Amino acid sequence: MTTFVNEATADGRAGAQVSPPSLAERYQAVRALTETLSEPLSPEDQTVQSMPDVSPTKWHRAHTSWFFETFLLGPYASGYAEFHPAFSYLFNSYYEAVGQRYSRPHRGLVSRPDCAEIARYRRHVDEHMMSLMEGPLDDRATSLVDLGLHHEQQHQELLLMDIKHVLSQSPLDPAYVVSHREETSPNPSHGGWFQHAAGPVEVGHTGHGFCFDNETPSHSVIVTPYALAERLVTCGQWLEFIEDGGYKRPEFWLSDGWASVQQERTDAPLYWGREGSEWNLFTLMGRRPIDPDEPVCHVSYYEADAFAHWSGFRLPTEFEWECVAADQPVEGRFLDPAQPHPAPQHGSSWYGDAWIWTASSYLPYPGFRTAPGAVGEYNGKFMVNQHVLRGGSCVTPTGHARATYRNFFPPSARWPFTGVRLARDL
Amino acid sequence: MTTFVNEATADGRAGAQVSPPSLAERYQAVRALTETLSEPLSPEDQTVQSMPDVSPTKWHRAHTSWFFETFLLGPYASGYAEFHPAFSYLFNSYYEAVGQRYSRPHRGLVSRPDCAEIARYRRHVDEHMMSLMEGPLDDRATSLVDLGLHHEQQHQELLLMDIKHVLSQSPLDPAYVVSHREETSPNPSHGGWFQHAAGPVEVGHTGHGFCFDNETPSHSVIVTPYALAERLVTCGQWLEFIEDGGYKRPEFWLSDGWASVQQERTDAPLYWGREGSEWNLFTLMGRRPIDPDEPVCHVSYYEADAFAHWSGFRLPTEFEWECVAADQPVEGRFLDPAQPHPAPQHGSSWYGDAWIWTASSYLPYPGFRTAPGAVGEYNGKFMVNQHVLRGGSCVTPTGHARATYRNFFPPSARWPFTGVRLARDL
Amino acid sequence: MTTFVNEATADGRAGAQVSPPSLAERYQAVRALTETLSEPLSPEDQTVQSMPDVSPTKWHRAHTSWFFETFLLGPYASGYAEFHPAFSYLFNSYYEAVGQRYSRPHRGLVSRPDCAEIARYRRHVDEHMMSLMEGPLDDRATSLVDLGLHHEQQHQELLLMDIKHVLSQSPLDPAYVVSHREETSPNPSHGGWFQHAAGPVEVGHTGHGFCFDNETPSHSVIVTPYALAERLVTCGQWLEFIEDGGYKRPEFWLSDGWASVQQERTDAPLYWGREGSEWNLFTLMGRRPIDPDEPVCHVSYYEADAFAHWSGFRLPTEFEWECVAADQPVEGRFLDPAQPHPAPQHGSSWYGDAWIWTASSYLPYPGFRTAPGAVGEYNGKFMVNQHVLRGGSCVTPTGHARATYRNFFPPSARWPFTGVRLARDL
Amino acid sequence: MTTFVNEATADGRAGAQVSPPSLAERYQAVRALTETLSEPLSPEDQTVQSMPDVSPTKWHRAHTSWFFETFLLGPYASGYAEFHPAFSYLFNSYYEAVGQRYSRPHRGLVSRPDCAEIARYRRHVDEHMMSLMEGPLDDRATSLVDLGLHHEQQHQELLLMDIKHVLSQSPLDPAYVVSHREETSPNPSHGGWFQHAAGPVEVGHTGHGFCFDNETPSHSVIVTPYALAERLVTCGQWLEFIEDGGYKRPEFWLSDGWASVQQERTDAPLYWGREGSEWNLFTLMGRRPIDPDEPVCHVSYYEADAFAHWSGFRLPTEFEWECVAADQPVEGRFLDPAQPHPAPQHGSSWYGDAWIWTASSYLPYPGFRTAPGAVGEYNGKFMVNQHVLRGGSCVTPTGHARATYRNFFPPSARWPFTGVRLARDL
Repeated sequence: MTTFVNEATADGRAGAQVSPPSLAERYQAVRALTETLSEPLSPEDQTVQSMPDVSPTKWHRAHTSWFFETFLLGPYASGYAEFHPAFSYLFNSYYEAVGQRYSRPHRGLVSRPDCAEIARYRRHVDEHMMSLMEGPLDDRATSLVDLGLHHEQQHQELLLMDIKHVLSQSPLDPAYVVSHREETSPNPSHGGWFQHAAGPVEVGHTGHGFCFDNETPSHSVIVTPYALAERLVTCGQWLEFIEDGGYKRPEFWLSDGWASVQQERTDAPLYWGREGSEWNLFTLMGRRPIDPDEPVCHVSYYEADAFAHWSGFRLPTEFEWECVAADQPVEGRFLDPAQPHPAPQHGSSWYGDAWIWTASSYLPYPGFRTAPGAVGEYNGKFMVNQHVLRGGSCVTPTGHARATYRNFFPPSARWPFTGVRLARDL
Repeated sequence: MTTFVNEATADGRAGAQVSPPSLAERYQAVRALTETLSEPLSPEDQTVQSMPDVSPTKWHRAHTSWFFETFLLGPYASGYAEFHPAFSYLFNSYYEAVGQRYSRPHRGLVSRPDCAEIARYRRHVDEHMMSLMEGPLDDRATSLVDLGLHHEQQHQELLLMDIKHVLSQSPLDPAYVVSHREETSPNPSHGGWFQHAAGPVEVGHTGHGFCFDNETPSHSVIVTPYALAERLVTCGQWLEFIEDGGYKRPEFWLSDGWASVQQERTDAPLYWGREGSEWNLFTLMGRRPIDPDEPVCHVSYYEADAFAHWSGFRLPTEFEWECVAADQPVEGRFLDPAQPHPAPQHGSSWYGDAWIWTASSYLPYPGFRTAPGAVGEYNGKFMVNQHVLRGGSCVTPTGHARATYRNFFPPSARWPFTGVRLARDL
Repeated sequence: MTTFVNEATADGRAGAQVSPPSLAERYQAVRALTETLSEPLSPEDQTVQSMPDVSPTKWHRAHTSWFFETFLLGPYASGYAEFHPAFSYLFNSYYEAVGQRYSRPHRGLVSRPDCAEIARYRRHVDEHMMSLMEGPLDDRATSLVDLGLHHEQQHQELLLMDIKHVLSQSPLDPAYVVSHREETSPNPSHGGWFQHAAGPVEVGHTGHGFCFDNETPSHSVIVTPYALAERLVTCGQWLEFIEDGGYKRPEFWLSDGWASVQQERTDAPLYWGREGSEWNLFTLMGRRPIDPDEPVCHVSYYEADAFAHWSGFRLPTEFEWECVAADQPVEGRFLDPAQPHPAPQHGSSWYGDAWIWTASSYLPYPGFRTAPGAVGEYNGKFMVNQHVLRGGSCVTPTGHARATYRNFFPPSARWPFTGVRLARDL
Repeated sequence: MTTFVNEATADGRAGAQVSPPSLAERYQAVRALTETLSEPLSPEDQTVQSMPDVSPTKWHRAHTSWFFETFLLGPYASGYAEFHPAFSYLFNSYYEAVGQRYSRPHRGLVSRPDCAEIARYRRHVDEHMMSLMEGPLDDRATSLVDLGLHHEQQHQELLLMDIKHVLSQSPLDPAYVVSHREETSPNPSHGGWFQHAAGPVEVGHTGHGFCFDNETPSHSVIVTPYALAERLVTCGQWLEFIEDGGYKRPEFWLSDGWASVQQERTDAPLYWGREGSEWNLFTLMGRRPIDPDEPVCHVSYYEADAFAHWSGFRLPTEFEWECVAADQPVEGRFLDPAQPHPAPQHGSSWYGDAWIWTASSYLPYPGFRTAPGAVGEYNGKFMVNQHVLRGGSCVTPTGHARATYRNFFPPSARWPFTGVRLARDL
């Protein structure tokens, strides 16, 4: 669950003089974006689950609605009748406290309810939510709406990660969006190093605005002198790693990583392909040649760590990134439905494009406590077998990222928009 | 491949005086039925593959078109340009001689081409096929069209078997067709036994009309005196088996069958469910209570054999059935899109409702030879690890079944419309 | 179970004038051979289970004793106390009627009881069995002893098949027996064809002497004119198959066979290896070069069938072999502990060296009935998903094979001593 | 690899006045203990691998010898001839830099070399090592011997963990050692809490004596005020957890833990069994009733964490334990071959009996560097997907544990001697 403030400035984007959007306005904006993102997708596209970790688009659309129905409309909207009795079973993702749920790896086997019915479900929930927000809401309800909106933003990113994996299954290399590629000027430099001195630093969320429970409590950690690369590792650098035998030399790899490379016969990032001697990659805009200047994306923690070893550097800890990023504006390439792909970086670049794998395991902060009840299942119970990712990506909704934000995935995950930022000791 | 005759009477349904339909007329009728069967299905329904043995509806629609494109239009239609270069890869089912093919268990991961594009593909193929059939066709081409039509009829049955499995995944218990159930008069009798004397009998296809290669050569086999039940085993009889501990007593079961029951925790036919003490079953018309008088369906060979042991009888061989059925009219409950489900039988009943599992392994007849080239892969290469089924079912297109027809599935298969007919020695 | 005769001549080897061995004498001879076969094996060797189908040597030694304890000593030896209460659980192989049993794939995980305790168990059972056989035995008990002895002979063959697989796991290529290889004269000929006319033939066991239940009832089958190769396919012929791309050309293979070759990356018979361009094979006498004249061994049904297709011939049915072999003396290379491997054949050769895969599925004969109780589980419940093998092998105990004998394995099995005899239509 | 000192006091047990044992004396003592631990085990026992994580006893005996042969005799003993050319392949555990290695999950399939040959191998290596140590050794060689001895001590613990798992497979419940159980006085108290104040603390190895590379560099971390339980959680406390539905209530569990409990149907610690309402447990001394006062053992990280949640407390971090334990004598129940099992604790107890699962992932310390070459693979490459355990157990050799020692296992591991110490915030 969340620590929150009642002001609706929650997502911190708010500029200066104009009054911030109301909760209902934010609700409408977030809900509308989900539908906008689904629009280019046919009913067939929205039905497929290409692997157990992926959910169908129509499931995302339903599950995010289920969240509001379950945690807001049920408890707070008097006399609310649920849209369909089976939906609480079908669209519960993992909340054990809420009851049984449909087996996750089988979400792609359910053709009905279809997209049209799910659109009706969304409208039904939206109408009742708008009514609910017309009346007075207590603090807990307000914060639950806020949580639901940030939850839906997370699923907007998941929706795009997932549909990219789905579309990549077809030998037709279909595009999610047909887009003219931006002209980019060549970028021979890889950027410099940003240095940080030793000392205790304060990490975790303290300020105003929304945060997830896993960003708290704020606390001190000690860092030793280090430097962070000002830009993400590029595809051109990754090609050097490949050409130097990076995927064939066990000395660079963690033991589990090497086992995975052997078993999966990995020889390049996910979505990379090769036609003769030319590398190409599948994007949400279809397949095209590799651009050596753009940040590499869709690598596992194992690959990120092996690359770092090969390069003579290392991955940063989550705190090494946080205490640098906290002093930088939250700017970078975030979700633009017309260009959902990383682009070459210029200058120093601390947010967006691709999440960075950190050397930190996803563990609770000292004194961390989960909220009681189902929303307490939000984060805490995943704190094992995962690594922290930081910074946001080109499919993270604008306003969703912040310096204290902790994303997390198992070390083998490659379908998120995951990249690499190097660190070194000073 | 096939032995065939040039007359277009191939499917033998033809009545007396009126001239039989032309090849082109039959082509149109068969192709139209596939689209009729697909009509109640949404794009979402047509995309799902609920297990590796199942294919999505849109795949069936494309694959049957691919057959005509590959074996007729490519070789015979001069200047024919294929509809899409990737389709020969995507919609080849198992013909190794035709080139690479997309992995079968992953058919449900491909959202594109979508249903609309596949509809265009079908129309494209149909237009070129109609043109081709306007000109003179040599014997080989004619027989290939004929084969293609019987092939498409097989896929019409598969389409319904498969979509039943797909729809059963949804907790909403969706109906393929909303249908008022026919009134049936109670049927207390289970029918009698039909006796057959000892002696050599002639089996296999000899007459005019189409047959598949696996029905030839005709040859003699010796049978010992036996009797066949005149009707299929009913759900009521199956309930007795369940209540007598049929699924819990290893003495009735083949060793592989018992292992499967233990592992899958099978305790009833596929699609049966239980609400309290009441059994129900999922049909293409939705879920409804068990009718004790209707033939049991969706049992594996293991279950069929265990039931036969429990009842004190046995399963018939394929030839015991064939030499009785050859003297009977090919009448019974075949495919009616409004009622795709077995119904209580009256009198003696030899065809339709549910395929019967025979005690015969699917093996070549003495002197069997496959045709050269890709169509030679039609049947012969599956002659191991399968049992023969006979008689047709309530989802077999009318005119497709005959006394010599050999259907086949692995002993564990339960999703076809499979039933049980008992036999005994005299 | 068995049909049997009371005379102790049961295994039919008996020469003319001298009186045949008594039941007790035969008991001692068979039991002693098991121990002789185990002697070259260390406790370590006797403990390993190299795959689920293999059983440890010490398990075979115990299980064959358990058979006598369970079916003879328990019911017939008054006041008999079982050797150890856990053994009926540990050493039951598959008799559901006898109670629970230890999971088959885990037999190799049980280090205790150790070999010494199992030797004590065998002696304990032998002493009580000898006492039992001193007294009068009724017909049923006599036939059960007989069955137990043939059962133990089957396990003698299994013991050698299994330990060959176990020893092959070690990179040391250890020999079961150190043996000077026999000198063999070169054998350029592959033998001729033995022709058989059409007609009904009588198959199955009718005469005196022991047989298993699956060899009965005798009955007539119709065969069409055919010829059988007088010798088994040789390693030299198999090398031609390999060199002609036999393992890489799907047109020769059954669909399941091709899938298995792809998945297992099979490119030669089991136990074949290659050092540069030279093929060698692992035998119970260690590793040595291929002898092109010796019969090929350790091929699956899929490989046998593909070879037959490649060669332009086919595999025989079990009855085609039986009605030829019935007129031949039961002579050939059977178990000799000093030379447990096939050898080049001369003249015509109908038994021994390697079991031949037949085109026949393992199914009950018309009118087949199992015995009541646990011994009824001996054969009948395995009659699905297997093919019949005929003729015996170089590890079949002398006297165990006969013309009506039906061995059976799943089509994928390669660790039995399985070979190929070709057939063709006339 | 290690930081080390040349003095042979390395293991820190050494008493005061007497001169510490020489390197050769320590070598002999450690090597002799391995053989002592193997002595009660038959060749059958020493051959079995009961799951992929377990290695056969004879493999441990060989692999520890291979370490000295590969890293000492090969490079340093001039003219040394390896004992057997295949052993470097068979007994390499995971050192990629040393060449290929035999597949770990198949170690139990290799019956040869047998125990006798491995005993000869050990003597061969020992003789050459003793000769080598007679001459002068440079620092690197000395430290490699030292590393080899600590490596062998680790395998002594693994040998006992592994053989316990092997013996538990037999329904005979065999004892590794027959031992009269010590009389223990009832222990109603569970001990108190030891408090620690906030502040930066120094962790990691700094002093003299041997340590593994993963204990360095020493560095500062910040701790917040906390308390540690002075004793391990007992079986009696665990019974309360079970009886309160601990294994059936998802609210206590990490998500991966709950999935594992569901899939494995876990309802008690490993080796616990139940006869009616009475719980018993399998020990290296056979099976006996649960003693409520003894520390619970053989629980996964998931179970440990769920117990902590249920009890209202939490697991300690590795540093919370280390900075308390560093001030305590390294005393507790370590390896005694006659009593290899935890015993009820009295007073406060910080070492031995059972390793404690910490909340800390196994990650490198800031500035950690691996040694070049094969020994660099010792620890670093395992730093993902594991949790740190601290304190040693009843099967850890005396002198092997220390305050900075970091043991590690995946969170699902249950076959090590793993227990639970609770912590709480102040």
